[in-house]
Amino acid sequence: MKRKIIALLTDFGDTHYVGIMRGVILSINPNAIIVDITHNISRHNIAEAAFILLNTYKYFPAKTIFVIVIDPGVGSSRKAIIVKCKRYIFIGPDNGVLYPSIIEDGVEDIYIIANRKYVLENISQTFHGRDIFAPIAGYISKGIKLSDLGPKLNLSEIVKITFNKPIIRDKKIIGEILYIDGFGNIVTNIDANIIKKLCMGRRKISLEIAEHKYVLPLVKSYSNVDRGKPLLIIDSFNMLEIAINGGDASKYFSVKNGDKIIIEI
Amino acid sequence: MKRKIIALLTDFGDTHYVGIMRGVILSINPNAIIVDITHNISRHNIAEAAFILLNTYKYFPAKTIFVIVIDPGVGSSRKAIIVKCKRYIFIGPDNGVLYPSIIEDGVEDIYIIANRKYVLENISQTFHGRDIFAPIAGYISKGIKLSDLGPKLNLSEIVKITFNKPIIRDKKIIGEILYIDGFGNIVTNIDANIIKKLCMGRRKISLEIAEHKYVLPLVKSYSNVDRGKPLLIIDSFNMLEIAINGGDASKYFSVKNGDKIIIEI
Amino acid sequence: MKRKIIALLTDFGDTHYVGIMRGVILSINPNAIIVDITHNISRHNIAEAAFILLNTYKYFPAKTIFVIVIDPGVGSSRKAIIVKCKRYIFIGPDNGVLYPSIIEDGVEDIYIIANRKYVLENISQTFHGRDIFAPIAGYISKGIKLSDLGPKLNLSEIVKITFNKPIIRDKKIIGEILYIDGFGNIVTNIDANIIKKLCMGRRKISLEIAEHKYVLPLVKSYSNVDRGKPLLIIDSFNMLEIAINGGDASKYFSVKNGDKIIIEI
Repeated sequence: MKRKIIALLTDFGDTHYVGIMRGVILSINPNAIIVDITHNISRHNIAEAAFILLNTYKYFPAKTIFVIVIDPGVGSSRKAIIVKCKRYIFIGPDNGVLYPSIIEDGVEDIYIIANRKYVLENISQTFHGRDIFAPIAGYISKGIKLSDLGPKLNLSEIVKITFNKPIIRDKKIIGEILYIDGFGNIVTNIDANIIKKLCMGRRKISLEIAEHKYVLPLVKSYSNVDRGKPLLIIDSFNMLEIAINGGDASKYFSVKNGDKIIIEI
Repeated sequence: MKRKIIALLTDFGDTHYVGIMRGVILSINPNAIIVDITHNISRHNIAEAAFILLNTYKYFPAKTIFVIVIDPGVGSSRKAIIVKCKRYIFIGPDNGVLYPSIIEDGVEDIYIIANRKYVLENISQTFHGRDIFAPIAGYISKGIKLSDLGPKLNLSEIVKITFNKPIIRDKKIIGEILYIDGFGNIVTNIDANIIKKLCMGRRKISLEIAEHKYVLPLVKSYSNVDRGKPLLIIDSFNMLEIAINGGDASKYFSVKNGDKIIIEI
Repeated sequence: MKRKIIALLTDFGDTHYVGIMRGVILSINPNAIIVDITHNISRHNIAEAAFILLNTYKYFPAKTIFVIVIDPGVGSSRKAIIVKCKRYIFIGPDNGVLYPSIIEDGVEDIYIIANRKYVLENISQTFHGRDIFAPIAGYISKGIKLSDLGPKLNLSEIVKITFNKPIIRDKKIIGEILYIDGFGNIVTNIDANIIKKLCMGRRKISLEIAEHKYVLPLVKSYSNVDRGKPLLIIDSFNMLEIAINGGDASKYFSVKNGDKIIIEI
């Protein structure tokens, strides 16, 4: 039998909550290959997890089953869903965390998890990663028919989240901070194509970061500036990133997610 | 050959100490499936590890081999033991960390690790996870007879630890804090059955947390209260938990393991 | 087919940067076994990673493929290399991080990664772990000929790093701090053989730690001194280690990597 990959994304950190999910999956399908994306999503940060999933899922083999447990509404009436897409299957709470990825991959069918036969016997009020999402992933990896798991849902019925696009007006690109990574690198929502089109060939860019003005070099390697110096670079998200060579840009510029980034064209 | 699962529980954090253990196991049995429970046990906290193991092991497939390295006495005369139970095998230092789990699973045989043939040639004074526990797990996963590993030990000869049960008297449930998780959720030693029996149908509960009085709602979902507000809930340990929706209850209430929780019935 | 082990060592922490690398490897070779050494190397600390690799690689099965991404020069002109050694294969940036390990294992061939056929189509400026090192490891694990990956390089052409050896003069051993582990244990560059030869049978040792004088017991187990008390021990690196039983020696002695340790013989 071909071994199926189950990829986990949670905000649990390195805790037994993840360990238990691994145990539950292997109890149902000892041949599953469990892979961690990361468990270090900021607690309850649905938008951050959605952004990370969107930029990660496509690097996994087709047919990977993604289990996403960023679930501030656990125990409430929020639905638990399975989304069958063109290349992948996504499982998680219906709170928007899956939305950008499933739209990009191409939604085929959405199911509400409803069949008590494929979840743990006792469902707690606080840990559906263990009681619902892990067992469902285990059974799907064994080939259970998705239509056995619960009724279908229309795409229009699930929770949506979208990322703001930058606005271009008055010779300015008005963007914002989408994500700050573990190194403190600041990932903006201004993508490489916009920079190529509007800042073509420029070595220095004038910009406002959270209402303070700077002129920063646009470089091809962090090491193009001295250690401790700020820079702009097109990063691995293919986005404009504000970074410090060897340092923490989010601290240097005192910024947080959602702060405005305004570039003068 | 059926592939065997080896589950690791340590207080090493994300360090090469865990990486080396994985390497040692795979050197002996490349077909072993190594699964992390967590490596984030508070350093040297045997009681915490015992509690986490007790609440985790049963979610793993039967015949899983558990390797527990919370080992403040490494290099001293404390024994290293293997406990064959009804469904699982447990390996670790004889300091009580295995005790609650092996009793629950049902002890069949206990062995002292003594045969130098199945451990690394050079045994360090500081890292028996690498030198003793990992190789023993590797050989057991390959099917070596447990009785080849060392002499038997009686259950009465190993180190015991037990968790305090709550006391019910004078219309009070006198419990304590068993565990504080990575989110700051406070897990008490008062289980769901006691609450069902003695607080049946109540929506609010009067209690003392570390000698301060509160009246808190008993809810079915963290999100039943506003973000930042305290609550009581039956959690994934099936225990009464004191939590803050989206916050850190251990900081909010300034408490630590062992602090008293007194409920007025 | 025999399943190949790919061992990862990075300074990425628990982030999606590691998760993506796992996905890329499995997309190329779903049968690869991915093992984490640690991702907790201090950011950009090439010497620390080199030391950890040197003390870890030999515990893995022969033919393990090591992928090391401590890469402050990503996007610059630093080379990306593959080193075929006697027992293992090492992949990483040519910044010295591989050097001590490949010398010890025995270098057979070194290749520059140059063939665009075996890396991702779009190579970012900031994340060669994903774009170059992970895919190369995936293809090597599938049996691709190393000579297909790029031109050969001589050992004399790659970046070297070496660890200082202690100096013995004037009845003193003048060493230094090589590494401080996650517990705050201080690992010196003074190995067990020097201690055996020069401090044979001594129970107490006079030494200077970062210019302050101490007399510390040389013990066989951390627990030979009371909790919170300092000690010397031969550790799992087979080095003289300065530790606090149950505590953090690096804080206690206020030291950092490279600080001098001087022992009076």
